[in-house]
Amino acid sequence: MDKQVRRTAPAELIAELKDLLGERFSISGPVCEQHGHDESYHETAAPDGVAFARSTEEVSAVVKACAKYNVPVIAFGTGTSLEGHVAALEGGICIDLMQMNNIVAVRPEDLDVTVQAGVTRKQLNDYLRDQGLFFPVDPGADASLGGMAATRASGTNAVRYGTMREAVLSATVVLPDGQIIVTASRAKKSAAGYDLTHLFVGCEGTLGIITEVTLRLYGIPEAISAAVCAFPSVEAAVNAVILTIQSGIPVARIELLDETAVTAVNRFAKLDLLEKPTLFFEFHGSEQGVAEQAEMVGAIAKEEGGERFTWASKTEDRSKMWQARHDAYYAALALKPGRKGLTTDVCVPISRLAEAIHETRADIASSFLTAAIVGHVGDGNFHTIFLIEPGNKGDLAEAKRLSNRMVERALAMDGTCTGEHGIGYGKMHYLEREFGPAADLMRTLKRAIDPKNIMNPGKVIRL
Amino acid sequence: MDKQVRRTAPAELIAELKDLLGERFSISGPVCEQHGHDESYHETAAPDGVAFARSTEEVSAVVKACAKYNVPVIAFGTGTSLEGHVAALEGGICIDLMQMNNIVAVRPEDLDVTVQAGVTRKQLNDYLRDQGLFFPVDPGADASLGGMAATRASGTNAVRYGTMREAVLSATVVLPDGQIIVTASRAKKSAAGYDLTHLFVGCEGTLGIITEVTLRLYGIPEAISAAVCAFPSVEAAVNAVILTIQSGIPVARIELLDETAVTAVNRFAKLDLLEKPTLFFEFHGSEQGVAEQAEMVGAIAKEEGGERFTWASKTEDRSKMWQARHDAYYAALALKPGRKGLTTDVCVPISRLAEAIHETRADIASSFLTAAIVGHVGDGNFHTIFLIEPGNKGDLAEAKRLSNRMVERALAMDGTCTGEHGIGYGKMHYLEREFGPAADLMRTLKRAIDPKNIMNPGKVIRL
Repeated sequence: MDKQVRRTAPAELIAELKDLLGERFSISGPVCEQHGHDESYHETAAPDGVAFARSTEEVSAVVKACAKYNVPVIAFGTGTSLEGHVAALEGGICIDLMQMNNIVAVRPEDLDVTVQAGVTRKQLNDYLRDQGLFFPVDPGADASLGGMAATRASGTNAVRYGTMREAVLSATVVLPDGQIIVTASRAKKSAAGYDLTHLFVGCEGTLGIITEVTLRLYGIPEAISAAVCAFPSVEAAVNAVILTIQSGIPVARIELLDETAVTAVNRFAKLDLLEKPTLFFEFHGSEQGVAEQAEMVGAIAKEEGGERFTWASKTEDRSKMWQARHDAYYAALALKPGRKGLTTDVCVPISRLAEAIHETRADIASSFLTAAIVGHVGDGNFHTIFLIEPGNKGDLAEAKRLSNRMVERALAMDGTCTGEHGIGYGKMHYLEREFGPAADLMRTLKRAIDPKNIMNPGKVIRL
Repeated sequence: MDKQVRRTAPAELIAELKDLLGERFSISGPVCEQHGHDESYHETAAPDGVAFARSTEEVSAVVKACAKYNVPVIAFGTGTSLEGHVAALEGGICIDLMQMNNIVAVRPEDLDVTVQAGVTRKQLNDYLRDQGLFFPVDPGADASLGGMAATRASGTNAVRYGTMREAVLSATVVLPDGQIIVTASRAKKSAAGYDLTHLFVGCEGTLGIITEVTLRLYGIPEAISAAVCAFPSVEAAVNAVILTIQSGIPVARIELLDETAVTAVNRFAKLDLLEKPTLFFEFHGSEQGVAEQAEMVGAIAKEEGGERFTWASKTEDRSKMWQARHDAYYAALALKPGRKGLTTDVCVPISRLAEAIHETRADIASSFLTAAIVGHVGDGNFHTIFLIEPGNKGDLAEAKRLSNRMVERALAMDGTCTGEHGIGYGKMHYLEREFGPAADLMRTLKRAIDPKNIMNPGKVIRL
């Protein structure tokens, strides 16, 4: 973590923001407290005030005011990040974007949509359903689309549809001096100039605040089916994944649950899955295409010793199955009531995935902690949820030690220290390890774009 | 264009580079001349010397030497760019990367490959074929992969497989001070830090020199088939494209040729296509999947008045058809022997494509110039090839006037001034028009990363 210098909002700034937003600017303790933490184990650091913005222009005005007093600005969506992204480490003003929840324009012919940052992915998909369209990126939480863009989120559908990196066509961004820019046109491709869109996707609010995004959409597939299959080992399951990807089968989802995760899900959702490493699949396409994909994957699973390959083509069976997958985190927590979860995620080249998971499981087996593994394995991405007793320093230290080993292993395998959770302030030291001299270039970018270091300071890159 | 100050390489630098590279550094007139222009109408601006590098370390050494003397450095691949990208506008040293032509590693399990910048796309695909793999980005020219990354190239397969933006997983880059960085790990996705890969993809050598790239690969599809269909109007053809994309049919290629382009291709390749707006399609998948796609597209084409829907499932028929498409540029030139081509490309949201092409054709019809339109219409991207007499200022002015109208129209439709050719020095004024205040941010990036402005100066962004 950088050495923090507290830059508390002065009374003049508070007064200016009150003038600007009236009731929509708050310095109430509980409101600030609630905006100082995300869903992770990281400690709360409350901002000095929370501005509930309703437009890009308001965000710009707040940022300009903060810039004038050299006070930090932290963007806030649903608060579902996992590496302390929203903690006001140096104090300052939080801008809550959830009142910016308009769907600005849906353009079915262009398969794109423009939304304000506070629109959530479920809100968007509910809105799109009648038009036969959907937005595929699904990190589990019903996060805001601005927040998902800012953390380069992904989730279960990424193996087929990509992550926020691929989903965002263009963004409206408020820069650290309050200037408003649009990063790109709505053209599906462009060779014009530097790629500003990708500069802001994943910057975690440290280079600017995303207030609007234009996203790629897809037609709801004619047919969807899903399947569950147990495997004798994690290696066998991962081999089935590798063969599936290599065969070019356009699976929409391939998720792995290890034995512990399956046990947890069985208890939590009252299922009777075999308590073995298990893959959940989903197929999208035409009736014929889905049947063909399923047949091919079934054959691959059989080859790898898959057992009880079970279909779920009815919507309710599928929903139940994916609900169970999405609840894996809560299901794992329920294994040891009263514990909290410390979750970490890495992503490795798929050829190294079985090894990475195998060694992580060996670490867990030799530890006193309980931990479950789930993964978006089609991408080589997996998560470990360590169950720790709140306030127990030994548990926390052990979870961090195992998490550290998991990250170091991923880096040694030419992987990344986070596939989708982001850096926040929890993984800043790994960024240096992962990028080496390229981290200096990130510092150069941060200093050039945000010379006063007011945008979400103390996150992503050490200065 | 920026005001250019000539920064000729001093004798000391020439001597240092001679020491460093021996025979592989040349100041011969014809060698310099050859490295001062691309395939476009833009004038030659020869560098003061050409360094033929064989490794990233050599590129770094050359860049360091140039930085010491504040002398420009311009990277050179196959010289097939189209907006004057390689012209040494202020003099300086050209680094020719074509001797860096090693395929460093193919990893079939991970569906990725690492190549040096000078490997061409055909060389790579020849190498991959036996392993059942291919690299899809195909801009027509057998360009170097480093150059394709640097110009964010795309081409006929982009509608399904994306452009170099999606294809590059990671790059090795020599920065303006000679430092070597790797922009990302080989993980398929990452939420770690700023997206450095996308900063360099499309920077046209103005922020650094790409010396190696790691690229996504795909399995060669089990089945490939292609089709040609004529339409009563460009609108009808484009409507068929929109319906195809909206239906989620994963076509691999959809190319449009207008009447003039079809006429040109008929003469050049001795074909007998109907001389009407025509779509070329290609489908990739399983035997069954390809048949299904073809049937769906056939039905859509029929609805839009498509005529003579013709299949080419045999490899030789397909090759002939795509050769004709790739030769469209030369075929158009052959319509008026002795003329040169001035080609421009734009990309618009697909809902505006018919209108954009219709109005461009109206412009051509009311002009004294001959011009043909071809397009990667699945992406909303199209090109116009204006035939101009070499040295005829009236022709050049008229081609520029029409090209300008085409770009302004695209910008008014929320499109981009170039879908795939890039900015070079031919389209710098449009970059300002397209991005407005965001162009200032590009300047900030350029100044921060290349404070001496030695990397390909006078290109992409005005300083």
